[in-house]
Amino acid sequence: MKYPPIGYNEYLQMDALLGAQKLRSVDFKNPAHDEMLFIIVHQTYELWFKQILFEVDSVIEIFKLNPMPENSLGLALHRLERVKSIFQLISGQIDVLETMTPLDFLEFRDYLYPASGFQSFQFRLLETKLGLKEADRLNYNEGPFYKYLTPQQQDEIKELLKQPSLFELMDQWLARTPYLRDETFCFWTAYQETVEKMFAEDMKVIEENPLLNPEAKVRNLQMMKSSLETFKALFNEKEYMELQKRGIFKLSYPALHGALLIQLYRDQAILQTPFKIIKTLMDIDELITQWRYRHSLMAHRMLGTKIGTGGSSGHQYLKDSTEKHKLFSDFFNLSTFFIPRNQLPKLPKELTKKMDFPEYPFPR
Amino acid sequence: MKYPPIGYNEYLQMDALLGAQKLRSVDFKNPAHDEMLFIIVHQTYELWFKQILFEVDSVIEIFKLNPMPENSLGLALHRLERVKSIFQLISGQIDVLETMTPLDFLEFRDYLYPASGFQSFQFRLLETKLGLKEADRLNYNEGPFYKYLTPQQQDEIKELLKQPSLFELMDQWLARTPYLRDETFCFWTAYQETVEKMFAEDMKVIEENPLLNPEAKVRNLQMMKSSLETFKALFNEKEYMELQKRGIFKLSYPALHGALLIQLYRDQAILQTPFKIIKTLMDIDELITQWRYRHSLMAHRMLGTKIGTGGSSGHQYLKDSTEKHKLFSDFFNLSTFFIPRNQLPKLPKELTKKMDFPEYPFPR
Amino acid sequence: MKYPPIGYNEYLQMDALLGAQKLRSVDFKNPAHDEMLFIIVHQTYELWFKQILFEVDSVIEIFKLNPMPENSLGLALHRLERVKSIFQLISGQIDVLETMTPLDFLEFRDYLYPASGFQSFQFRLLETKLGLKEADRLNYNEGPFYKYLTPQQQDEIKELLKQPSLFELMDQWLARTPYLRDETFCFWTAYQETVEKMFAEDMKVIEENPLLNPEAKVRNLQMMKSSLETFKALFNEKEYMELQKRGIFKLSYPALHGALLIQLYRDQAILQTPFKIIKTLMDIDELITQWRYRHSLMAHRMLGTKIGTGGSSGHQYLKDSTEKHKLFSDFFNLSTFFIPRNQLPKLPKELTKKMDFPEYPFPR
Amino acid sequence: MKYPPIGYNEYLQMDALLGAQKLRSVDFKNPAHDEMLFIIVHQTYELWFKQILFEVDSVIEIFKLNPMPENSLGLALHRLERVKSIFQLISGQIDVLETMTPLDFLEFRDYLYPASGFQSFQFRLLETKLGLKEADRLNYNEGPFYKYLTPQQQDEIKELLKQPSLFELMDQWLARTPYLRDETFCFWTAYQETVEKMFAEDMKVIEENPLLNPEAKVRNLQMMKSSLETFKALFNEKEYMELQKRGIFKLSYPALHGALLIQLYRDQAILQTPFKIIKTLMDIDELITQWRYRHSLMAHRMLGTKIGTGGSSGHQYLKDSTEKHKLFSDFFNLSTFFIPRNQLPKLPKELTKKMDFPEYPFPR
Repeated sequence: MKYPPIGYNEYLQMDALLGAQKLRSVDFKNPAHDEMLFIIVHQTYELWFKQILFEVDSVIEIFKLNPMPENSLGLALHRLERVKSIFQLISGQIDVLETMTPLDFLEFRDYLYPASGFQSFQFRLLETKLGLKEADRLNYNEGPFYKYLTPQQQDEIKELLKQPSLFELMDQWLARTPYLRDETFCFWTAYQETVEKMFAEDMKVIEENPLLNPEAKVRNLQMMKSSLETFKALFNEKEYMELQKRGIFKLSYPALHGALLIQLYRDQAILQTPFKIIKTLMDIDELITQWRYRHSLMAHRMLGTKIGTGGSSGHQYLKDSTEKHKLFSDFFNLSTFFIPRNQLPKLPKELTKKMDFPEYPFPR
Repeated sequence: MKYPPIGYNEYLQMDALLGAQKLRSVDFKNPAHDEMLFIIVHQTYELWFKQILFEVDSVIEIFKLNPMPENSLGLALHRLERVKSIFQLISGQIDVLETMTPLDFLEFRDYLYPASGFQSFQFRLLETKLGLKEADRLNYNEGPFYKYLTPQQQDEIKELLKQPSLFELMDQWLARTPYLRDETFCFWTAYQETVEKMFAEDMKVIEENPLLNPEAKVRNLQMMKSSLETFKALFNEKEYMELQKRGIFKLSYPALHGALLIQLYRDQAILQTPFKIIKTLMDIDELITQWRYRHSLMAHRMLGTKIGTGGSSGHQYLKDSTEKHKLFSDFFNLSTFFIPRNQLPKLPKELTKKMDFPEYPFPR
Repeated sequence: MKYPPIGYNEYLQMDALLGAQKLRSVDFKNPAHDEMLFIIVHQTYELWFKQILFEVDSVIEIFKLNPMPENSLGLALHRLERVKSIFQLISGQIDVLETMTPLDFLEFRDYLYPASGFQSFQFRLLETKLGLKEADRLNYNEGPFYKYLTPQQQDEIKELLKQPSLFELMDQWLARTPYLRDETFCFWTAYQETVEKMFAEDMKVIEENPLLNPEAKVRNLQMMKSSLETFKALFNEKEYMELQKRGIFKLSYPALHGALLIQLYRDQAILQTPFKIIKTLMDIDELITQWRYRHSLMAHRMLGTKIGTGGSSGHQYLKDSTEKHKLFSDFFNLSTFFIPRNQLPKLPKELTKKMDFPEYPFPR
Repeated sequence: MKYPPIGYNEYLQMDALLGAQKLRSVDFKNPAHDEMLFIIVHQTYELWFKQILFEVDSVIEIFKLNPMPENSLGLALHRLERVKSIFQLISGQIDVLETMTPLDFLEFRDYLYPASGFQSFQFRLLETKLGLKEADRLNYNEGPFYKYLTPQQQDEIKELLKQPSLFELMDQWLARTPYLRDETFCFWTAYQETVEKMFAEDMKVIEENPLLNPEAKVRNLQMMKSSLETFKALFNEKEYMELQKRGIFKLSYPALHGALLIQLYRDQAILQTPFKIIKTLMDIDELITQWRYRHSLMAHRMLGTKIGTGGSSGHQYLKDSTEKHKLFSDFFNLSTFFIPRNQLPKLPKELTKKMDFPEYPFPR
C-alpha cells in the first residue's frame, strides 16, 4: 500500500530463474530426459549454499564483536540453527538425485566435461569461512584446492584465507570465557583434584574387588591409568601444545578450557546459549560430514570405479576427505574429559550469582 | 573430449541463478535479514515445480499412447516415483521456512504487497495438468482461480483446461483394462456372487451366535446390510452414475472396474506395474494434500488471523482447500469394495496364463 | 566395575520385548505376513508414547515450581525439544505402515475386532496431560471419550482431569510475567498508543494516495478498520472475556499479555528461553496436528468408507478432530497482534537492565 | 464378530511391553532422567530389527525357489522395499538419541557395564543372513565376532553361517539369468565388440583433435587405455577370478554377467522387477552403511576417545567397519562397466519377444 506494488513473478525473478536450465544433450541433438533433474538438483544446492553463506557471514560478523552482547549471541545461535535446518533439508536431495540411475547419467555425462562439483565456488567459500585450512585438506591431484576455480574466484579465496574464520573467532571468544579463575577459586585446580581423587577411588575399588581375578585386575587398572594419562594434557599447557602440534587438537589452550567449562556447567543460565552454540556447530559438522559421506556413496554408485567428470579419482577421494575435512572435531573430542555431573566441583556462590539474572527469582 | 568443454559455472548458469535475489527491504533502505531466506525458499520451490512439471508432462505423453507398450508404463512409473520423491523432499522446506518467526516476517512483509503464492503460475499449471477442474475448486474471492495470473498465463491455463489431464488419461487407460470379460468368464458376475455369499454367511454367523444379545444382533446385522448397500453401486452402472453426479466418484464406470481388478489381482505379473502406478498417484496425492495442510498451519502461525499478502482470507482458505483439491480420492475410496484375498474369485487358468511372461518359469 | 555386571539382553529385557508379538492370524491358522508389521508399528508407537509421557510429566513438575529457577526453565525447554524430536521421528512411521496395502490389511483385520487405537490409554493420557479438555473434544459416538478404556484406566483419566494440565500451568506461569508494569512504565498503554498511531498513519497514507481510485480507498480503509477492531480485545479485558467465552481464546487475559510481551521482546536475554518454550509448544502442536491429519488420510486409504475396527465412523472423524483437538492455537493466533519490530515501544533502560546478566558485557 | 473379541491392550501385550523398562540408575538410588530414553531407543531399534529379520527371512525363502515364479519376485521386491523404508525410519532415531548429551550419558553409563551393542543378537543375525562372512569382517579384539553373545546365540550363528545367505541366493539366481546366450546370439561377444569399437573411436577422436596439445593427447589416451583394461575382467573369466581372489568382486562370474544384463536392458518388461531388486538392495546397503557411519559419529560425540561400554576401542572401530562391512558393493562397482544406452547392442527380436507379455500390446 505504502510501497510501489510488486508481483510474485517480478519479485522472485521467475524469468531469470526458470530460464537458466539449458540441456547440453538438447544442444547436441540427443536429448536426455534426466539432464533436467541433474541441473535442477545442482541449482537448488547452489541456492541453498547462497543462503547458508548469508547466514554464516552474519554469524561471523557477530563473533567479531568483543565484548559480545547477550542478545547477539542468541541471534548467532538462531542463525546457526537455521544453517543446521538447511543441511538437514538438502541431505535429502541425494535421495532425489538417486532416482537417476547410472545408465541415465551416462546418456549425457560426456557432454559435461570438464564441469565438476570441484568448481563450486560457493562450497569452497563455505569451507573456508567455517575454518578449513589449506594445510588440513586432503591433497587432491597436484596444486592448491582452489586450482579449478576461475582466477578471480581464486583471488577471492586467497584473500579470504587471510581473514579470521568462524573457527578462529570461536576460539577467541571461548578463550575469553570468564569464571575460570577468581580471587578465591581456580576452576582448573579444583577439576584436577576431583579427577585425581575419582580415579584413585575407582582404582581402589578394583584392587579390593574379591570377585576379580588377578589378570582382570591388571587389565582394568591399566585401562584406568591410560585414561588418566589423557587427562594430563588438560592440566598441562606444554603437553597440550604437543597434542596440538600433532594435529590432535586445533583449539588454543584457553579456548579448550572455556569450551569445557561451558559444557560442564551448561545448566547455569548464562552458559545455556554458549552451550547450544557449541552443540549446534557439532550438529552442523556432523551433517556436513554425513553429506560428504553420502556424496561419496552416490559417486560410487553412479560411476563404479570410473574417473569423475572433473578428472577426480572418484568416490575414494570423497570418502577419504570425509574425516579429514571435519572442522569441529575438538568439540567431539572434548567428551573425553567429561566426568559425571554429581562429581563436578561445586562452583562458589559468588560465582553462580554472577551467572544468573539479577533479580531472579522474580515472582513467577 | 569429443564436445566443446564447459565449466560448472557456465553449465549451471550460476550468474543468472545467484544474481536473482533482490531484497526489497534493501531497496527501501531497511534491510531485513530474513528476506533472503524468504526469497530462496520460494525460488527452490519454483525450481522443483519446474522439475515436477517436466516429469508430469512426460508422463502425460506416455499415457496418450494407445496401446501403451509395457516398457513405457515402467518409465511412467519411474517418473511418478521421482515426483513423489521430490514432494517428500520439498515438504521439508517448510521446516526451514519456519525458522523465520512471525516477527521477522513482519519486518519486510509490507514491501511485498501484493505479491502472493496465488500468483505462482507453475503451481496452477501443475494442478491443472494433474486434473483439478475449475468446478472442483474451492471458490476463492470472486472470479476464476487464475485471475491473479498475467493475461498471457491466463490464456495458457484456459487452453490447458481443454486438454486431457493426467486424471482423464488415466481414466481412459484404466477403462481399457483387459481380462474383465471373456467368453467363459465375467469377472463382475463372479465378484458379485462372492460378495453376496460372503455377506450372507457373515449374517448367518451373527444370527446364530448364542453369545450375542438381541440388540447386538440387530445392530450388527444393520451394519452389514448398510455395507452391502454400498457395494450395489459397483454392480449397477445406473446407481454408480448417481454417485458420480453427486460428486462422490469422478472415475468413469469402466475405469473404476479396471482399477479394482488391478488392485485385487495385483500379484499377477502383468498387473504389478499398473498397481504401482495407482499406488504412486495416491502417494503423490497424499503428499500434496499434506503439503497444503502444513502450508495452512504455517500461514496461521505467521499471520494469526491477519489477511494474507495476496489479500486472501488467510489460513482458513488453505485449510478448506486441502480436502476439496484432492485429486485421486477415488483410488482411496476404492478400498471400500475390497474383500479378503482368500475369498476372491479364482481367475481361470487361460486368463492367468495371458497375465504372465510366455516362457515362464524359465530355468532360474 | 563398581556395580554388578549386566548384559545387553538382560538390561533391555529382550525376552519380554521380543516375545510380545503374537499374531492372531497364526492363532486362527491363517497366517497373514503383514500382521507382524501391524503389531510392531503399534508397539513402537506405544514405546515412544511412554517416552513422551515421561518427558511431559517432568516438564509438568517443573512448571509447578513457583518461582521457577532459570535453569529449570532451560531443562523444560530441553525436554520439550526432545518431545518435538520424537514426534518428528514417529510421523515417519506412517510411511512404513503404508507399505501394508489395504488388501494385506484385510487378510487379518477381522481377527482384531474390536481392538482399536481408541483404546490406547497412553495417548489419552498424553492429550489430557497436555490440556485437552473433555468439553473441547469432538463428540465421538455417545458417552465420554474414555469410554473405550478399562474401568481402572477410566478412573485414572477422571482423576487426571482434575489436575492442572501443562496448558493450565503454562497459563499461570505466563500470567506471572514481570516487566508488564512498573512505576514509570505501563507496557500496555505504550503498545496501545503505538498501534493506534500506526493505524492512523497508514490510513492517512491511503486517503492521500493520488493513485488509488475511490473504491480502492474505501476497501483498503475498511480492511484497516476491521484489523484495528481485532486489536481492541487486547486492550480491553471485558471484550477479551467475550472472545474467551466464544472459545476463540483459551488463555487468561494476563497470560495472553505475558505471551505477547515474550514474543515481541524475545531478543532480551531473559526472554529468550521463554520465547523458545512457546515456540516449541507450537511446533509440537503442529506435529500432533499433522500426525492426526496423516492418520486420517491413511485410514481413508486402508478402509475407504468402511467402518474402523473400533466401530468408529472412520477417517472422517479423525479428520474432523484434527482442528478441534489443537491445543495451543492461542499462540498461533497471537501473531494477529504483532507489529513490526521497528515500531515497538522502546523499553526503558532500567527495565532492560533487569533483563540481562548483571556484569554484562564482561570481557569476552 | 466371528472370532473371540480382543482388546487393544491384550492384543499388543501392553503390560509386557510397557513393563520392560527398568532403570539401573533408579535401582542404584541415583535416578538419571535420560536413562529412560536410552532404553526406549534401544528397544525400538530391536523391535524394528525383529521386523526386518521377519522380512529378510521371507525374502530368503523366496530366493530359494528355483524356478522362481514372477509374482514371488514381485513379493520379494515389495518386502525389500519395506526393509528399505524401515531403515530410512530408524536412521532418524539417532537424531532423538542425540538429544541426550554426553554429560547426561555419564550420569548412568557406569551402571551399564559391560552391556554393549555388540551383544545385539538380532543385529548379528541380520548381518549374517544378508551375507556378511566372518572372513570379511573387520577384526575386533581377539576371537570371533560372536564372542560377546550367549553360548546358545553363538551356536545359532554358527549354524546360520552354514546356510546360504541372501547374497549367495542372489548370486545363484543371477547366475540363472536367461537371454545371455542363444543359438543365434551371444550377448557377451556383442558387448565386447561394442566396447572395443567405442573405445577405438574415442581414441581416434582424441588423436585427430587439432586443439589438443601433445601432452594432453597422451594423458587422455592413457586414461582411456586404463579404462579399457578394467573391462577385460568382464570378458575373461580367468582375469575375473583374479579380481575375485583379491577381494575386489564377490559375485560369481555368471552372476556378474546376469546382473549386468539386467542393469543394461532394464527397460524390457521382464527385467524391470529384477532391476528393482538390485536397486533396492543397493539402497539398503547404502542405508546400513550410512547408519554405521552415523553411529560412529555419535559414539565419537558421546565418548570422545574413551573406551566404549563393551570395552570396544570406540568410534574408530565403528568407522573402520563402515566400508569393510558393506555387502553389495559389487552392484556399485558394476557401473564401471556400463556404456551409454544408445551404444548398447540391440537385442534380436526373437529375444525381446520372450521378454514381454504374450498378447502385448493388447488394446489399452
